[in-house]
Amino acid sequence: MLYNDEMRRDILSRLSGYRLKHTLGCEKAARELARKYGADEEKCAFAMLLHDITKNFSQEEQLNLCKKYGIIPNDVEKTEWKMLHGKTAAAIAADVYHAPADVTHAIAYHTTGCANMTLLDKIVYMADYIEENRSFDGVKTARKLAARNLDKAMLYGLDASLRDLVHRGKLIHVDTVLARNWLMNNM
Amino acid sequence: MLYNDEMRRDILSRLSGYRLKHTLGCEKAARELARKYGADEEKCAFAMLLHDITKNFSQEEQLNLCKKYGIIPNDVEKTEWKMLHGKTAAAIAADVYHAPADVTHAIAYHTTGCANMTLLDKIVYMADYIEENRSFDGVKTARKLAARNLDKAMLYGLDASLRDLVHRGKLIHVDTVLARNWLMNNM
Repeated sequence: MLYNDEMRRDILSRLSGYRLKHTLGCEKAARELARKYGADEEKCAFAMLLHDITKNFSQEEQLNLCKKYGIIPNDVEKTEWKMLHGKTAAAIAADVYHAPADVTHAIAYHTTGCANMTLLDKIVYMADYIEENRSFDGVKTARKLAARNLDKAMLYGLDASLRDLVHRGKLIHVDTVLARNWLMNNM
Repeated sequence: MLYNDEMRRDILSRLSGYRLKHTLGCEKAARELARKYGADEEKCAFAMLLHDITKNFSQEEQLNLCKKYGIIPNDVEKTEWKMLHGKTAAAIAADVYHAPADVTHAIAYHTTGCANMTLLDKIVYMADYIEENRSFDGVKTARKLAARNLDKAMLYGLDASLRDLVHRGKLIHVDTVLARNWLMNNM
């Protein structure tokens, strides 16, 4: 068993406000996608419970966790340090909650995506993108696509992210481009 | 001396139609930018004369040149093989025209950009983007920016390229993203 009710309550007790609401929305969306696409529902739900566990941490806390767990921020993550929350959450998922490697991988790449994404990785990425509390432009289209074709939904999300980063003058994580290229070459 | 009139005529004799016109436009634009920003004018002009020397080659010819010169296409270049013309032109510039390494580097990355671009690299990239025969939306803005601030013009060009690639559903070369991130962190 990956986790029990007590562990779930423990994880959720570390979240509050919008972050808690969003995490519960992600858990629900990931279970739905897992059933639809034949993924391991418990792994998807477990990844979602933990994916943002360090999201509200300060830059200092993120960097301390990087030091503790041997995570080396790249040039983008040094500036956009909030991006590190995927990697630090994955480290805590493994160390504290004994999450298996495929679950921690999905947590680590839930913000950027990456090349060679597994079904679990894709579901975690998309559930985070479309869960019921999200309200950005295009979320309805993303939900419709996710219900029909997970890869098309992924590409829609990655394209929207890239356009948004260019529009806002933000650095682009190389993994997002590698995710998109890999997806386009394999869908 | 990098090249003489005879070499210039020889290079130009290998081009025709729009490609010849574009190359002469690039040569002129690069000389202007070189004078403006204090780069080596002869190197900029030489790089421009050679930058598209393999642009009209077929996929078979590109791949033969890759084999001959030890160029290994990455996942994007395997699909978007026309992108290889920068790398194959750089190899021919070195092998046939004895171009120095900084000139071949500028030729190799004139389409994608890359991290750590030199002034020469930037001028070749921008001259190619704004030369007088170009007529795409935004070229006037790019020319104005290039006359004032080379880095801002580069970022404008890279952003426009990324938006265009997302819009057209094309693969994105990782060097374009690395160029943009590096530029944003160093301007």
